[in-house]
Amino acid sequence: MKKLIKGLREFKSTYVSSHQQLFEQLSHGQKPRVLFITCSDSRVDPNLITQAELGELFVIRNAGNIIPPYGATNGGEGATIEYAIQALGIRQIIVCGHSHCGAMKGLTKLHTLDEEMPLVHDWLKYTEATRLLAKEHYSHYKGEELLEIITAENVLTQIENLRTYPVVRSKLYHNQLRIYAWIYNIETGEVLAYDPETHSYVLAQSLLPSLDDEISTNGDSNGYGTRTPAEPQEVIFDRLHGFPMTRLPQSQVDRIYRGSSN
Amino acid sequence: MKKLIKGLREFKSTYVSSHQQLFEQLSHGQKPRVLFITCSDSRVDPNLITQAELGELFVIRNAGNIIPPYGATNGGEGATIEYAIQALGIRQIIVCGHSHCGAMKGLTKLHTLDEEMPLVHDWLKYTEATRLLAKEHYSHYKGEELLEIITAENVLTQIENLRTYPVVRSKLYHNQLRIYAWIYNIETGEVLAYDPETHSYVLAQSLLPSLDDEISTNGDSNGYGTRTPAEPQEVIFDRLHGFPMTRLPQSQVDRIYRGSSN
Amino acid sequence: MKKLIKGLREFKSTYVSSHQQLFEQLSHGQKPRVLFITCSDSRVDPNLITQAELGELFVIRNAGNIIPPYGATNGGEGATIEYAIQALGIRQIIVCGHSHCGAMKGLTKLHTLDEEMPLVHDWLKYTEATRLLAKEHYSHYKGEELLEIITAENVLTQIENLRTYPVVRSKLYHNQLRIYAWIYNIETGEVLAYDPETHSYVLAQSLLPSLDDEISTNGDSNGYGTRTPAEPQEVIFDRLHGFPMTRLPQSQVDRIYRGSSN
Amino acid sequence: MKKLIKGLREFKSTYVSSHQQLFEQLSHGQKPRVLFITCSDSRVDPNLITQAELGELFVIRNAGNIIPPYGATNGGEGATIEYAIQALGIRQIIVCGHSHCGAMKGLTKLHTLDEEMPLVHDWLKYTEATRLLAKEHYSHYKGEELLEIITAENVLTQIENLRTYPVVRSKLYHNQLRIYAWIYNIETGEVLAYDPETHSYVLAQSLLPSLDDEISTNGDSNGYGTRTPAEPQEVIFDRLHGFPMTRLPQSQVDRIYRGSSN
Repeated sequence: MKKLIKGLREFKSTYVSSHQQLFEQLSHGQKPRVLFITCSDSRVDPNLITQAELGELFVIRNAGNIIPPYGATNGGEGATIEYAIQALGIRQIIVCGHSHCGAMKGLTKLHTLDEEMPLVHDWLKYTEATRLLAKEHYSHYKGEELLEIITAENVLTQIENLRTYPVVRSKLYHNQLRIYAWIYNIETGEVLAYDPETHSYVLAQSLLPSLDDEISTNGDSNGYGTRTPAEPQEVIFDRLHGFPMTRLPQSQVDRIYRGSSN
Repeated sequence: MKKLIKGLREFKSTYVSSHQQLFEQLSHGQKPRVLFITCSDSRVDPNLITQAELGELFVIRNAGNIIPPYGATNGGEGATIEYAIQALGIRQIIVCGHSHCGAMKGLTKLHTLDEEMPLVHDWLKYTEATRLLAKEHYSHYKGEELLEIITAENVLTQIENLRTYPVVRSKLYHNQLRIYAWIYNIETGEVLAYDPETHSYVLAQSLLPSLDDEISTNGDSNGYGTRTPAEPQEVIFDRLHGFPMTRLPQSQVDRIYRGSSN
Repeated sequence: MKKLIKGLREFKSTYVSSHQQLFEQLSHGQKPRVLFITCSDSRVDPNLITQAELGELFVIRNAGNIIPPYGATNGGEGATIEYAIQALGIRQIIVCGHSHCGAMKGLTKLHTLDEEMPLVHDWLKYTEATRLLAKEHYSHYKGEELLEIITAENVLTQIENLRTYPVVRSKLYHNQLRIYAWIYNIETGEVLAYDPETHSYVLAQSLLPSLDDEISTNGDSNGYGTRTPAEPQEVIFDRLHGFPMTRLPQSQVDRIYRGSSN
Repeated sequence: MKKLIKGLREFKSTYVSSHQQLFEQLSHGQKPRVLFITCSDSRVDPNLITQAELGELFVIRNAGNIIPPYGATNGGEGATIEYAIQALGIRQIIVCGHSHCGAMKGLTKLHTLDEEMPLVHDWLKYTEATRLLAKEHYSHYKGEELLEIITAENVLTQIENLRTYPVVRSKLYHNQLRIYAWIYNIETGEVLAYDPETHSYVLAQSLLPSLDDEISTNGDSNGYGTRTPAEPQEVIFDRLHGFPMTRLPQSQVDRIYRGSSN
């Protein structure tokens, strides 16, 4: 505790005094472009690993970077996601797991948690899909290897859950939201990102090229940005978040029940 | 009631006596190939509109053909879906909305339901994403037109919810499950099916060609069928259910954290 | 799936074209007289076994034809029941179980479901009363015999649950709702109905005579129709739904607080 | 997004390569000494403001640094707190609010959130005590001033909630847990800490002297370390976390039921 309080002093005397302009600006409000959802693990520091400055990342952290499906519980995750999208107009969400995740280890021995850590046991219910996948498809893997797979699958499971939130579905519908699946490697400090094209996790850097025409974040907190042209967008869009949104073309909306007249 | 009981008598004397073999066979168990999720509306009769025989359709019916996300409630929908997939080995799910849906009408005047029909009000929470879409994107539509759009969007919302169930995700992962979005038109008796390729609802018949190489349902209730070759499958698969599963190729599974060595 | 889509085509070309008037009429709304609650089992087809036409049956289907008690969960059953009674003015409810029910089989080996089908396990909690009855009173029965008893008891348990819904109690109080307990026999196609007078299930047909003076359904969605004369009604009423509502005769209601002045 | 991915590269090439030993050590597990609960706000970076290194802070972040009371919901907060104390043996918890908090602003206009951000609305229910306090005791304050008060009170409300968790109460009972209330000032970069002695927030630094005899954190995940002598401990203990645990002195515990024999 002493160490932390001394840290506060150091932060004030060094960082703050050398970033006066930034603090001046931040006092007028925040305009983060990214919602970063990751684990509570002390070895993961979103701002440090992305070298992001104060004001850039809106952060949710809990054990296992888990997002209960919409309506499943009145927890902080849903409210914070809603606030990020509706109030802050955030248009990019990163769900970031990490190697050696204690919560994922717990998932591999769920039965033992019921007595010892009942709340953790109940919390892991929201990644039950991951446990089932591991049981049905990865039962021949063990130890570290199994843990790696579960960690990678859990991030995808959480993105499935994330998609059930009304505000998320609405923004996906408008091509105004992208979702990314990341894994941070605690030993190497490297980040893998899920590439929907190859259906595999690759070094995040390798996705850079395709990032050139990024969706421009319109700061307005209502998020009624001008609609980006559908087709080309769609492609990049899909390649990037890997979870294409099913949507009705305007043409159809005007005559849904005239299917026969096609 | 008299009419129904007379109907029972007629059913017994006509249908049953003329289908002895079928009844004989059904007495040994059911092997339905399809889980049909639709509305309670008296004008929708799954077996009649698909001309399916006894034993072919496993059916869930509630107001609005709604499926709460996994973990959101301890209701009949989740349990029945789990039973259909785990115990019966069903590999095809149809979510079928219909025109003039009373539940969807309720969604357009949700505020009035709180007092009058509180349970319906709370139930519609599970299609809140549809209400938000309508509010943000279809506010210039009114009456019948708006209702048609909401009905079409609701089916897609429910499929998002459906995907959060562990057993659903697991089977999608194995390429052993297909999900279809249908709308039944009460006036014309026609069915529209969602075509992910064109992102629009079209006459179900028009999808027939692509149905030639269908996933063979292995009756075993555990559903560990032989894995179908990924690539070609994938294509048809995606075209048909429109909700491609993000999955790890075996090659990657064996070395998730060696991303850098790519 | 091909088969079903071909069925749609056949339905359209045969049934629809030969029932133009019916479809015309249904397009103006539904006026079902019965809420039919039954199992998702593919071998049960409410419209077929009762020979009911489109528009006659409002249907709820889930695994085990189970109805959670009021307030137990935010599921589709309660909302659909509320909608049937409040919005559609339905005055007759049939809860229909069936032989060889998979959910009831599950109830006989509940402990094995926890791991394999957790959602089914939790869902069966709403018929725990049936399991307890079987354990305490029918432990000397086994196999098929026990299953038949459990199936019959489950329908009665679910009617107890049904009676906990405010709208149900209110309508029962006004003699404006009848509840029927049915069991459909999958091998013979016969239906047994519960006869409260003999406290036993008998062939549904045998109840016909007493059906002559049926409660007329007044379509009004508030359901405060003219009060039918109490006493004779009562008799048939009770005989038919087997679950007499405890109520004060008008005569008493008028002088409850004049006890002393008697 | 491009910026972040470039950041990942920079992090790898600079920080990681210059901290090889740290990463080596972290790969063997984490031993954080502090659970840091704060807001998702992008202007708050726990590690930066405390100058803490990777591995030192276990972090929970959500909108409003809110902790639902034990049993109120199956959310991430409770599970993460339980994991921090039971699995990691953490013995110090900091709940850190901050100036210009959007969630707290929301609390001042709760009625407007119901329609616009329903999940945020429901989430703020867990700081209703703060809203009531403001309404009953601070109604004469407005704008920024009121917001500051609410922010300060909210941290104390959340600590009340925190104390309802079984693992928290148990460790408090054993003098093995300290809870701190902090407020981070976004403009100045300064941190105020609650001083239970003066019942006021003061510059965190000013508490330093009293930190000399800190409770030593024994890493064991069961946390039943050797009992520290009660009396002197008590004083510092209370002074520091401001939420003295009601407990019986051992002397009394030994003779509660011997009252007469005194």
